Amino acid sequence: MNIDYPLLTDLYQLTMAQGYWERGHRDIEACFTMYFRDYPFKGGYAVACGMAQLAELVESYRFSSEDLAYLETIDAPLGGRLFKPAFLEYLAGFSLSVDIDAVAEGTIVFPHEPIVRVVGPIMDCQLVETALLNCVNFQTLIATKAARVCAAAQSPVAEFGLRRAQGAGGGLWASRAAIVGGCASTSNVLAGKLFDVPVSGTHAHSWVMSFDTELEAFRAYAEAYPNNCVLLVDTYDVEAGIDNAITVGLEMRARGQHLSGIRIDSGDLAWLAKRARKKLDAAGLTDTGIVLSNDLDEYTISSIREEGAPVSSWGVGTKLACAYDQPTLGGVYKLAATRQAGGEWTERLKISESVAKLTTPGVLNVRRYYFDDGRIAGDMVFDEVHGVDERQVIVDPLDDLRQKKLAGKRFDVLLRPLARAGSVVLEPEFRNARAARDRARSGLETLDESQKRMLNPHTYPVGLEYGLSERRRNLVVKLRGID
Amino acid sequence: MNIDYPLLTDLYQLTMAQGYWERGHRDIEACFTMYFRDYPFKGGYAVACGMAQLAELVESYRFSSEDLAYLETIDAPLGGRLFKPAFLEYLAGFSLSVDIDAVAEGTIVFPHEPIVRVVGPIMDCQLVETALLNCVNFQTLIATKAARVCAAAQSPVAEFGLRRAQGAGGGLWASRAAIVGGCASTSNVLAGKLFDVPVSGTHAHSWVMSFDTELEAFRAYAEAYPNNCVLLVDTYDVEAGIDNAITVGLEMRARGQHLSGIRIDSGDLAWLAKRARKKLDAAGLTDTGIVLSNDLDEYTISSIREEGAPVSSWGVGTKLACAYDQPTLGGVYKLAATRQAGGEWTERLKISESVAKLTTPGVLNVRRYYFDDGRIAGDMVFDEVHGVDERQVIVDPLDDLRQKKLAGKRFDVLLRPLARAGSVVLEPEFRNARAARDRARSGLETLDESQKRMLNPHTYPVGLEYGLSERRRNLVVKLRGID
Repeated sequence: MNIDYPLLTDLYQLTMAQGYWERGHRDIEACFTMYFRDYPFKGGYAVACGMAQLAELVESYRFSSEDLAYLETIDAPLGGRLFKPAFLEYLAGFSLSVDIDAVAEGTIVFPHEPIVRVVGPIMDCQLVETALLNCVNFQTLIATKAARVCAAAQSPVAEFGLRRAQGAGGGLWASRAAIVGGCASTSNVLAGKLFDVPVSGTHAHSWVMSFDTELEAFRAYAEAYPNNCVLLVDTYDVEAGIDNAITVGLEMRARGQHLSGIRIDSGDLAWLAKRARKKLDAAGLTDTGIVLSNDLDEYTISSIREEGAPVSSWGVGTKLACAYDQPTLGGVYKLAATRQAGGEWTERLKISESVAKLTTPGVLNVRRYYFDDGRIAGDMVFDEVHGVDERQVIVDPLDDLRQKKLAGKRFDVLLRPLARAGSVVLEPEFRNARAARDRARSGLETLDESQKRMLNPHTYPVGLEYGLSERRRNLVVKLRGID
Repeated sequence: MNIDYPLLTDLYQLTMAQGYWERGHRDIEACFTMYFRDYPFKGGYAVACGMAQLAELVESYRFSSEDLAYLETIDAPLGGRLFKPAFLEYLAGFSLSVDIDAVAEGTIVFPHEPIVRVVGPIMDCQLVETALLNCVNFQTLIATKAARVCAAAQSPVAEFGLRRAQGAGGGLWASRAAIVGGCASTSNVLAGKLFDVPVSGTHAHSWVMSFDTELEAFRAYAEAYPNNCVLLVDTYDVEAGIDNAITVGLEMRARGQHLSGIRIDSGDLAWLAKRARKKLDAAGLTDTGIVLSNDLDEYTISSIREEGAPVSSWGVGTKLACAYDQPTLGGVYKLAATRQAGGEWTERLKISESVAKLTTPGVLNVRRYYFDDGRIAGDMVFDEVHGVDERQVIVDPLDDLRQKKLAGKRFDVLLRPLARAGSVVLEPEFRNARAARDRARSGLETLDESQKRMLNPHTYPVGLEYGLSERRRNLVVKLRGID
């Protein structure tokens, strides 16, 4: 899909851009930070995703003549046109001039730490805001949901939510993010084509209904797909369906073929899976698997597994592809510093009634510290301009009195260059969904079990570097006029 | 956005298609019905949407050589390739041959009645299933949510949820559907370009933060946009922000200009709106409006209005663009009849444990009956093959004993031709979002107030035509082997 990224934005970004341009404010450089404030799904982590699309956005960011022709037509509410011909002419030759740093796709991330950082003329930074938030928010949400579902499943999960996804694009990027989060495959063929991710699928109820009998339908399918044969057994009656599948499975075996599995898509899945396993085993089809689907999520999967249902793999649709229980990640993009081009950075802060909504000023990055055994020990948000003092203390952004010393521990730095002066510098391995899935899998292994708990997990320490925390505090005091 | 519709599908549609093709089953004609089972948002109606995209799908449905090259690479799990060269060659020349009938966009619709009907070779019907469900499910959901939000607001609503929407496509079609449901405008510039819908927007907090003082920022904005000036007053301190806006509003008035409004995006919105109104009025800026935003939906808007807050218009984002409290409409697409090309239709039924999931067989359409005063009286699902008997009785699909006689009342027929033999026949007025918005507005006027209630609304009678209900009952008895 070719997305017209320059117009995939809120109108106010363009009206502000014209305002900055008219005042010569393109000289003002800004640093924006993208982060989220709350753990999604009340869990203990998130899986970052959306950076590959972000790179696509940067690469293809150019106003077409059709874009400009459209912008020219927009009326101001009280009369006249909103955009001036000279500004549209300027946009015709405009190219983005931003530096973007972002965590790698598949990185485990936490609230209150930067996921993406954008530095450049304030106008350019704002022009990418809406699309950046759109792609990183949504894909991080779905990758996280997928990681939770896969952790509960413990056996392969196929994502097949396209029909209930939020639009074609919602479905497409959801499918890719689901792979990054750990799914084995997706039913979404377009995602397979565009993102080189594994696709899977067999047949639907309508296949069975289009034949005179279920047995005939199963035989026809086995004949057409001896190497991809999973029979859906619940079109009419599950018990009879299992029996018909066994008949066909034995016929396949006699031909030297293999019935890979049966799929159950309705009824009491745990009960039916046990029943099917017994029947398949009794018939000698011990290596024919059982696939379950029908409105599953991490909770239902967990419950089915707890009952000891013998499940080989899972199909998960609706509740994964749109993150049913929390359909947005509230990631924000906040101005953190400004400077005159070439000058010194001035920290910027938006104060608010609640400490949770207070932004963090500075040109931020993140250090992730590790225990000797490889588990993660704490994340430090620091300002690259001021650096980190040798004590390496982090301060909870919501509670000054919670502090933790990290000196002496090994660390990584999380933000890595994605674009420089408007050109993408991200290496191909960081744009590949399968590599991101490997990264997420390794990352999840660095978490303590208590942090991966589905409900009420142990909160992971993310804090501001001590000096940064102090500077932020002083800035609040100054802006609120307390001193 | 050019969407590659033939691949925007579940893989199993293509594996089934190859199966049908191999067996010469393209001779089998099918009739599929798309409908949903439950009122979205626990409300009393839905607003149909997605038919314009459905027309786009039909028009552009053609496998490209890249599509076929990709399909050729897909492996079967147990070895070999999934698709045969001869089938891919067939797809290269394939064109859809379906008749599609659908309700007009903006039509008020209810559970258990067909929204879309597809007739054609069973293979063709299945190839469009996933994309059809994706677009009609999502857009109907958002149009319905927008109608609820607008009904609560009673003054103009601007949709600006793109940054939290589910992907670029999710955001794009959500913006269009929000207009169909009743929104006055969207912030989404790309939606404005592609769908000819009104766009709106002014400035963000970052505009204010990029100046040394708020007053300076407001003056600069008023100077740049005297005809589109709504000042966001809560970057630092709302009280001071209102005062600064008043200063600028009076300066504008002295120049013969007009401050259209102020926007409040945080804090206690109802309290602040009253406070702002008093201050604006006291300064003589009685025609400067108050715009509220920040995590609004129909419930918060309703509560703010009940307190008597003086609001001129609303900005609604996240909770509208992704239908936060119910992010999917569970619309389904079910096989309802089959025939050999040119032969008689055979009714098809998928039985299930629960009567709610029982499908309705036949080549279905809907009659909507009206009371003399213009209010709607009841919807009848009927089979075009069998027609409607003169008593015109409807039977509740979930309860045989609930019946209602509609004879003597005026009626419309809801499904109208969208495509014939794979060519779109929908007139331009039925593809236009603004016309659909007018249709939704008129449609909502035909509902009783009790049906529009936000919670626990009066259920509208939708039933099966008496003969259809009987035939369905007999088919269940036969399939369950009761007789």
